[in-house]
Amino acid sequence: MARCLTIAVAQTGPIQRSATRAETVGRLVHLLEQAAAAGAEIAVFPEMALTTFFPRWRIDDQAEIDAFFESAMPGPETQRLYDAAARLKVGFALGYCEIAQEDGRTRHFNTMDLVGPDGRFIGRYRKMHVPGSAEPEEGTTTHLERRYFEPGNLGFPVFDYGGVRVGMAICNDRRWPETYRMLCLNGAEVVLLGYNTPLLLDEAPALAHLRMFHNHLPMQAGAYQNTLWVAAAAKAGLEDGQALIGGSCIIAPTGEMAAQAISLGDEVIVHRADLDLIAICRKVNFDFALYRRPDQYRLISEPVGSHV
Amino acid sequence: MARCLTIAVAQTGPIQRSATRAETVGRLVHLLEQAAAAGAEIAVFPEMALTTFFPRWRIDDQAEIDAFFESAMPGPETQRLYDAAARLKVGFALGYCEIAQEDGRTRHFNTMDLVGPDGRFIGRYRKMHVPGSAEPEEGTTTHLERRYFEPGNLGFPVFDYGGVRVGMAICNDRRWPETYRMLCLNGAEVVLLGYNTPLLLDEAPALAHLRMFHNHLPMQAGAYQNTLWVAAAAKAGLEDGQALIGGSCIIAPTGEMAAQAISLGDEVIVHRADLDLIAICRKVNFDFALYRRPDQYRLISEPVGSHV
Repeated sequence: MARCLTIAVAQTGPIQRSATRAETVGRLVHLLEQAAAAGAEIAVFPEMALTTFFPRWRIDDQAEIDAFFESAMPGPETQRLYDAAARLKVGFALGYCEIAQEDGRTRHFNTMDLVGPDGRFIGRYRKMHVPGSAEPEEGTTTHLERRYFEPGNLGFPVFDYGGVRVGMAICNDRRWPETYRMLCLNGAEVVLLGYNTPLLLDEAPALAHLRMFHNHLPMQAGAYQNTLWVAAAAKAGLEDGQALIGGSCIIAPTGEMAAQAISLGDEVIVHRADLDLIAICRKVNFDFALYRRPDQYRLISEPVGSHV
Repeated sequence: MARCLTIAVAQTGPIQRSATRAETVGRLVHLLEQAAAAGAEIAVFPEMALTTFFPRWRIDDQAEIDAFFESAMPGPETQRLYDAAARLKVGFALGYCEIAQEDGRTRHFNTMDLVGPDGRFIGRYRKMHVPGSAEPEEGTTTHLERRYFEPGNLGFPVFDYGGVRVGMAICNDRRWPETYRMLCLNGAEVVLLGYNTPLLLDEAPALAHLRMFHNHLPMQAGAYQNTLWVAAAAKAGLEDGQALIGGSCIIAPTGEMAAQAISLGDEVIVHRADLDLIAICRKVNFDFALYRRPDQYRLISEPVGSHV
């Protein structure tokens, strides 16, 4: 019998700044219920699924910034989602803004947690490739993730989810081939990913029609080249005045689109992912032990040119 | 004024074993003339452009094997192509089988040479990712490249071609994200690539309809993720009883198909490649110095699991 994992991608429509956490968590619970009704064993929510994508603004007041962050997970407002997971027996990956007390200081990360079908914490990923800048730059769409977040410091971890090896990635991570390769080398079979991607960028109006292509292309290649299932959840639609693309999807290890969201709102897509397909795809072209040339790839992990 | 390089991809139809080198070189010269007439400044020919794709057979006799190889480049039969380059002022990249006397022994490589518009040798690449096996394997299409070729030992070099930085890659190299990343980190702006790809694989009949998708997907992602122009030439059509896919193409740094061959025969496609597009694409997502995390990628260049 085929080894399978039924995966749900829970795309959300916009989460306006005016929404309360309780309202937003209520939407997520409703999406998890839809996923469960469709037979899903796991669901992935977007990046920053609890709040608006606030890095589109320059904010100075630290208390105002920290209001977008969670200092405990689950916290009083998110506990309900964890309870729903246990009730429905459907785990999830949830993107959110994390405040951590680490190394004797307060640190801010763009984070995704993996939670089991018993509602218990399994593992954490912190976004590695933090895009944007720390100050608004003339001629570019304001995107201040580097103002509000440190780059991740937990590597590219892979966790056991009921016998399936699951990794996570967040938004801009999906554009970098190293993300999928590292997760693959760490043994991932499934990558759960969340993103917030503006439709328009002031710095590249001529490339606007390619935004969805540039969303799917690296994920499809990452799935194919690493023989992984990729399940990616967008926050989509007009959020606090900024249009975000949708295009949430589930991609097979062949690189094929197995399922794709067709709205810019709250929407669940589900696919029963055949994990045996991984070995079939691996066999055709990607016997890593036989064909990779790691001794020839040193430049990829060397810091030359890697600092401003 | 935009900085441009007009690139031709010279796809060839099948080159049967019965063809003489003189006949084959004549076809290549004719393709180079077509490229020149279309305004090309450089042309790329397929992998093994002088012979049939003989690794589809198990051959024991070394003299019979070596008849597919070149011991000098140019040699008596290929000089005519180099002369044509100088006459037409169009350089080229040519895939061929190379016998080298190196380290006190005879060595065999799957090689591509870059030749200038003056007909002079510029640089050499030897295929890094040699696929297949050394002996026929039951249940798989016979593909004995590892019987006949050593893996390349020249790294991922990038050469100056009239002010443009050009790298090369061969066939299976195009499926590995490390190929493009290494060439990009070495400064490539254009990657010239040749391939021979069977339409059908005994080991994966269920994936046969994806062969062209799996041809283009990693090249488009490689172009996008490394903001490179990729120009890829197939040997296509029914060659000595084996169907080879075509799909030769020129891919922009956006990942878009700028031109694509539509036949399985000798065919030239040309595109005036805007090299300034590289900086535009780099600016949007791929400021490597700012965003890459090489210290986090060590596993990619570590030999763990890299040997059978």
